[in-house]
Amino acid sequence: MSKMQENTGNQYKFAQRMSNTPRSFVREILKVTENPEIISFAGGLPNPQSFPVGPISTSVSEVLEESGSEALQYSTTEGYTPLRKYIAERYSSQGLNVNEDEILITNGSQQCLDLVGKVFLDKGDTVLLEKPTYLAAIQAFSLYEVQFKSVRLLEDGVDIDEMENMLSTENIKLFYAVTNFQNPTGITYSNNKRKKLAKLMRDYDTILIEDNPYGEIRFMGSSIPPVKSYLDEGILFGSFSKIVSPGMRLGWIVAREKVMEKLIIAKQASDLHSNYFTQRIVYQYLNTNPVDEHIQKIRNLYKKQRNLMIKMIEEHFPPQVKYTQPEGGMFLWVTLPEGTSSLELFDRAIEENVAFVPGQAFFAEGNGENTMRLNFTNSDDKGIEEGIKRLGNVIKERLSQN
Amino acid sequence: MSKMQENTGNQYKFAQRMSNTPRSFVREILKVTENPEIISFAGGLPNPQSFPVGPISTSVSEVLEESGSEALQYSTTEGYTPLRKYIAERYSSQGLNVNEDEILITNGSQQCLDLVGKVFLDKGDTVLLEKPTYLAAIQAFSLYEVQFKSVRLLEDGVDIDEMENMLSTENIKLFYAVTNFQNPTGITYSNNKRKKLAKLMRDYDTILIEDNPYGEIRFMGSSIPPVKSYLDEGILFGSFSKIVSPGMRLGWIVAREKVMEKLIIAKQASDLHSNYFTQRIVYQYLNTNPVDEHIQKIRNLYKKQRNLMIKMIEEHFPPQVKYTQPEGGMFLWVTLPEGTSSLELFDRAIEENVAFVPGQAFFAEGNGENTMRLNFTNSDDKGIEEGIKRLGNVIKERLSQN
Repeated sequence: MSKMQENTGNQYKFAQRMSNTPRSFVREILKVTENPEIISFAGGLPNPQSFPVGPISTSVSEVLEESGSEALQYSTTEGYTPLRKYIAERYSSQGLNVNEDEILITNGSQQCLDLVGKVFLDKGDTVLLEKPTYLAAIQAFSLYEVQFKSVRLLEDGVDIDEMENMLSTENIKLFYAVTNFQNPTGITYSNNKRKKLAKLMRDYDTILIEDNPYGEIRFMGSSIPPVKSYLDEGILFGSFSKIVSPGMRLGWIVAREKVMEKLIIAKQASDLHSNYFTQRIVYQYLNTNPVDEHIQKIRNLYKKQRNLMIKMIEEHFPPQVKYTQPEGGMFLWVTLPEGTSSLELFDRAIEENVAFVPGQAFFAEGNGENTMRLNFTNSDDKGIEEGIKRLGNVIKERLSQN
Repeated sequence: MSKMQENTGNQYKFAQRMSNTPRSFVREILKVTENPEIISFAGGLPNPQSFPVGPISTSVSEVLEESGSEALQYSTTEGYTPLRKYIAERYSSQGLNVNEDEILITNGSQQCLDLVGKVFLDKGDTVLLEKPTYLAAIQAFSLYEVQFKSVRLLEDGVDIDEMENMLSTENIKLFYAVTNFQNPTGITYSNNKRKKLAKLMRDYDTILIEDNPYGEIRFMGSSIPPVKSYLDEGILFGSFSKIVSPGMRLGWIVAREKVMEKLIIAKQASDLHSNYFTQRIVYQYLNTNPVDEHIQKIRNLYKKQRNLMIKMIEEHFPPQVKYTQPEGGMFLWVTLPEGTSSLELFDRAIEENVAFVPGQAFFAEGNGENTMRLNFTNSDDKGIEEGIKRLGNVIKERLSQN
């Protein structure tokens, strides 16, 4: 830049990608709901009762006593090997054949999105999303200046015919799916749908990104193998956020060696490695506690909360309102009659001190004005009872005005 | 992609940026030096004696006891407010006027590089680096598909005349500098140089990225204000890696509000927020311990190690070999006579069980074949004495062959 040009001083020259990336809508919503009088079904927080505070405390002491200096030092980009081995063995015990070299530890599964973006996405690439999809995936991929297409979600997963039609007419680089108890809808892909999806991905040479943060939190029905078990080249994300602690920001990517090489370079450039101290703590915790019992407790807790919310919806929402009945996870999805704006409803609900996330934020290509996401894991029984009652009243009031 | 095209199956379509980004050279070097018989001056590790294991253990117990569930929950993207306040107040006490809203907590200062890349760098932009520069900055910025220029480092900082010449003829987006005890050279910018640099950045409307991971580890001479104190719009990085623990991956960016808004979006898309549990622990530690005493201990330790290494170099390196005399930090920089290859020397040194990093890796535009980086913080006295002696012999042997 020539010295002769005007000195703009305060005018920072931001990268092009920043102009495409929205500040998170949910973040703004959550600010409104910070008022403690508001019963909020808006957040996506696990129930803090599910955090194993005591056992974690013991694990920290053990790690610091046995190998304090080492646990506080720099470490390898891939992550703590015994922790990666633990994850691999847990997959193997669930029928997915994975070894520790195929696992990279990340800062929660959110960082998996960013690393996949770095490794695969060029400006102008087309990314296929579910309709609706996980909001933060839209944000993370937006930073790679991609275009979005989206494919309808049915009750048992994505609409395969619509998808094949898209794959055959568009140049789609990758497809991102949350296959268990999806955020925001709570929908789970059927086994049959998973097989068909795997075949489509292979036939059209499209990269599958399978995000599975809630997989362990299945409280009814029976567990279904990941799509990756039908598609070895698929990329799978996992997370300790819902089973140990989200504040520790520990997740992982499962990918084959060729992809792993690139992911490691991207991870190293991003932040060298994930917090090693907490990797050691989490490994110590997993290795010295009955983890399956702990997960079962979370399932029981969330099942009770989910059942109560559905019972209250049945009682207090008008019959025209539809909702999903998730078999796990943290969310259910409400569809109001066409023409009802959940954004308008949100403003009314806040007046009644109850909050949710208006659904349109989850649609990469617009629509969804008549939908909303409800979180059932972070309210107590009284909150669910009272909150759904209030929300029912607001919905009835709105529908009676039509 | 049409179904008619060949099904490439195993052929992943990686993003363009991955083809420009080297796997870290130092990473490869460090693998060679893993053999415990090797005395390694190659790594960049703090001395584990500097980690406050006991006080950290107490702080963890306090955090978990007082607010366990909260410390394990999701948190805000910006970081734990009391920790940001602590950092801001420490700057203020050192004469740099900063408030907590201008601080974003990151995963070590490595993530600062990535976030700055995300926020500022478009493909094809020109980034100006020091010659030589911090290796991982080359890697992090490479992922944004930029071009590199580099400017000579003199004993008191960058060559200002060469820099002005570059700024006036090239369109340079940002300049990245490590102003205290630079990695790899150990060089510190003089106060006068800092003022001139600030003026140049302002005159040519160039973004200054001032990385300061070692600033607190000054063991001789007197502290010099950051360039940011002469350039309010400058962006400054800091880190707890060298004063508390690198394994916890906690650093920060200081930037003005307009930049901070964008950084927060980039951070949120990257990994939602940094490990909240360890933010709480580090804050608790800083707030309940005599931190300045702890830092003074590290300074004393490193000063002793640095002095011993210089003494041994004086005794055992031939007089044609030049080296820097850092006033802080972790590294010193050796320049061999022109035409001597430090890469060749490296192979010979490994045979003698002593290691360093050949300097050319630190040059974004090539050169530096006759340079090497030596780390003095992670070897004991015996290692420094024996290692430098061996290295001296290898150098003498090599020079006698010329």
